[in-house]
Amino acid sequence: MSAFKIHDQLLRDCHVLGRLERSHVLLHRNALLHWFILVPETDHLDVLDLEKTIRLEVVGEAASLSFVLKKRLSYPKVNFAAIGNVVPQMHLHVIGRKPGDSVWPAPVWGHLTAASSYSAEQVSTIVDLLTTDCGLRENG
Amino acid sequence: MSAFKIHDQLLRDCHVLGRLERSHVLLHRNALLHWFILVPETDHLDVLDLEKTIRLEVVGEAASLSFVLKKRLSYPKVNFAAIGNVVPQMHLHVIGRKPGDSVWPAPVWGHLTAASSYSAEQVSTIVDLLTTDCGLRENG
Repeated sequence: MSAFKIHDQLLRDCHVLGRLERSHVLLHRNALLHWFILVPETDHLDVLDLEKTIRLEVVGEAASLSFVLKKRLSYPKVNFAAIGNVVPQMHLHVIGRKPGDSVWPAPVWGHLTAASSYSAEQVSTIVDLLTTDCGLRENG
Repeated sequence: MSAFKIHDQLLRDCHVLGRLERSHVLLHRNALLHWFILVPETDHLDVLDLEKTIRLEVVGEAASLSFVLKKRLSYPKVNFAAIGNVVPQMHLHVIGRKPGDSVWPAPVWGHLTAASSYSAEQVSTIVDLLTTDCGLRENG
């Protein structure tokens, strides 16, 4: 799968943080809330079409990001979704939510219009968290 | 878990179709597209917090609904999400989508405003499909 490429739209919207066993890990550039996007290396488009053991691993990777959102970044709630109506390449949203956040209780898609940016230092801190807690490693 | 009750808001929004091993299966009353909602019998609120083997089973049940949407109801695309910002009880959306549907490519939440209703016969046909393909059984 060395020819695998992350979709251009995802690259425009996100910081690329690294990878886990099955998936690349992105961070949406909008820093109003922590919004991770997992991009599994697969040609399937829908996560529910994945073969059972691979699906288990991919959802397990989402759970490890959810752990970081809840235990390290203090979010009480995580939104988890695989939509892909606009960008067809399979990608899973794992988003930290809390009552009173910028768009609460609406879902982020189509509602999160205000924007805030991460500093390079903030991105680096998140990479460190995921490296320690999820086994994130560099792409390559 | 005999005291388990499906949240009132979900009961208002949906037809109750029956249950699988882990979850109750609902069908959103808006018939513009087939929109299943799984309600696992658990006190956890976020699907990614479920213990690994239970999570696998619940996501497997979502995959069996996705199979019906794609193979029996001819949807090319399935949206899968666990949000729960408004109704806190864990529930998973498994939604059949196709280019050109009422809100394509937007997600349904907050966008699907037009409405259409199922006849009792249409609901019964869907129950039959899920009984055959997913092992749906009556609640109780």
